[in-house]
Amino acid sequence: MVKLLNGKKISEEILKELRKKIKRNHLELTLGVVLAGDNKVSKIYIKHKRKACQKTGISFKLFKFSSKINTLELKKEIKKILPVVSGLIVQLPLPKKIKAQEVLNIIPTEKDVDCLSEKSLGKFYTGKFLILPPMAGAISQIFKKYKIKIKGKNVVIIGAGRLTGKPMTIWFLQKKATVAVVNEFTKNIIFFVKNADILFSGVGKPNLITGEMIKRGAVIIDAGTSHNKQGKLVGDIDFKSVSKKAGYITPVPGGIGPLTVACFLENLIKLNTKT
Amino acid sequence: MVKLLNGKKISEEILKELRKKIKRNHLELTLGVVLAGDNKVSKIYIKHKRKACQKTGISFKLFKFSSKINTLELKKEIKKILPVVSGLIVQLPLPKKIKAQEVLNIIPTEKDVDCLSEKSLGKFYTGKFLILPPMAGAISQIFKKYKIKIKGKNVVIIGAGRLTGKPMTIWFLQKKATVAVVNEFTKNIIFFVKNADILFSGVGKPNLITGEMIKRGAVIIDAGTSHNKQGKLVGDIDFKSVSKKAGYITPVPGGIGPLTVACFLENLIKLNTKT
Repeated sequence: MVKLLNGKKISEEILKELRKKIKRNHLELTLGVVLAGDNKVSKIYIKHKRKACQKTGISFKLFKFSSKINTLELKKEIKKILPVVSGLIVQLPLPKKIKAQEVLNIIPTEKDVDCLSEKSLGKFYTGKFLILPPMAGAISQIFKKYKIKIKGKNVVIIGAGRLTGKPMTIWFLQKKATVAVVNEFTKNIIFFVKNADILFSGVGKPNLITGEMIKRGAVIIDAGTSHNKQGKLVGDIDFKSVSKKAGYITPVPGGIGPLTVACFLENLIKLNTKT
Repeated sequence: MVKLLNGKKISEEILKELRKKIKRNHLELTLGVVLAGDNKVSKIYIKHKRKACQKTGISFKLFKFSSKINTLELKKEIKKILPVVSGLIVQLPLPKKIKAQEVLNIIPTEKDVDCLSEKSLGKFYTGKFLILPPMAGAISQIFKKYKIKIKGKNVVIIGAGRLTGKPMTIWFLQKKATVAVVNEFTKNIIFFVKNADILFSGVGKPNLITGEMIKRGAVIIDAGTSHNKQGKLVGDIDFKSVSKKAGYITPVPGGIGPLTVACFLENLIKLNTKT
């Protein structure tokens, strides 16, 4: 029988622990979120972050800007915001004409809860950072909770996106897994997927992976998010067919999503309690 | 018939170009190399670097320290050296007790020709750096010279070492290849190797890959270096059997080695001529 990897439940546990830690250490923390434009999906993500802050006793401040703001202006605004927050997230995607990496680099490492500045990424790449990119933090929590081993396992990552496949590649390599990263140009994706002990998908293509493609007993991590025709949030994995064959599977919603939010806040607290 | 990827020849061409560029721009450059201890292999690498500097008209300065130096002292010494060099290499491996990454982080990005500080690595990771880690620079030169396409190809990387497999993973992902990274814990290396259009090995294990393991016509890049019983420099690839089946192959010596040295110097010049 497939085991459901209950990200929602783990995230609730983490938030509870964080709430205790905040009280115990008398922490007064503020998470700042910068939003440029009015991307609908971004607004949903921001709502989740706000809720998680409320649950843990962290102040939440949203800084909204027009989609017409330019790189220089946005950098200036962020510099003004930084002194009044304990951690800052720049909600992605930014409007297309904005040089995203340049903006992200403004955030100093000690407030970069999303781990997206070049400096933070360099620290993560070398394995020397106190925090993990939230996606890696989320997956790390799942593997720890369900005691799933990684070393020597065949990991297949679908997509090398900035927030998903790319950090996961580095993280799984650090854990001594065999890692294969496939993308839209891969000629025979099934060759790789069939061989995966652990499958991570984060591209946002509904039903990309079906039951017949996977290895029996595999660990299936679905970090894809898109909306189907009915407007319902769905992952990359055809849950119905895959769950019949997998050993472990994350649902969408209620899997990776809530966990990454909890990991943002965990990062915020880690960065503000190190001594 | 297999085609020899002649790294030595390409490197000579690069050094010639660099020599011209230095003359034309009246550049006065100094490459500093820091050596702690007296690792024999390190000394050979340093000799190659010195020679390449002589060929291109770059001053070469070696700074030698005892193997007993500690992290703090070495960092202090490097800080003193930095103002008198245009670029600095800390020869690896450092003595075991030294915190290597901490030392490497002392080098400012604009003098980090080896691309090994956290800041440089973060820039490389995001694809925003003027220079490439020398191994990626070397491979990039080979693929350009021999017009070998990468996008959509199955790349297999053996070993995820700091100077070899790890930067190559990032680089091949940036080039939209399908990338599989195997290591000593991989259960069925042949499954991956057999499927490789491009095979990169950089672990230092003689004869790790033999002809029967590879796909006919594959591009074989041998970045492994070790010494056999006769004291001869050898790669990871059994050249005799593999060259009968491969489409392209790099020899050892005369393949990747000289090219990485040329790429160090190319990086030095790029970092000192950008305006």
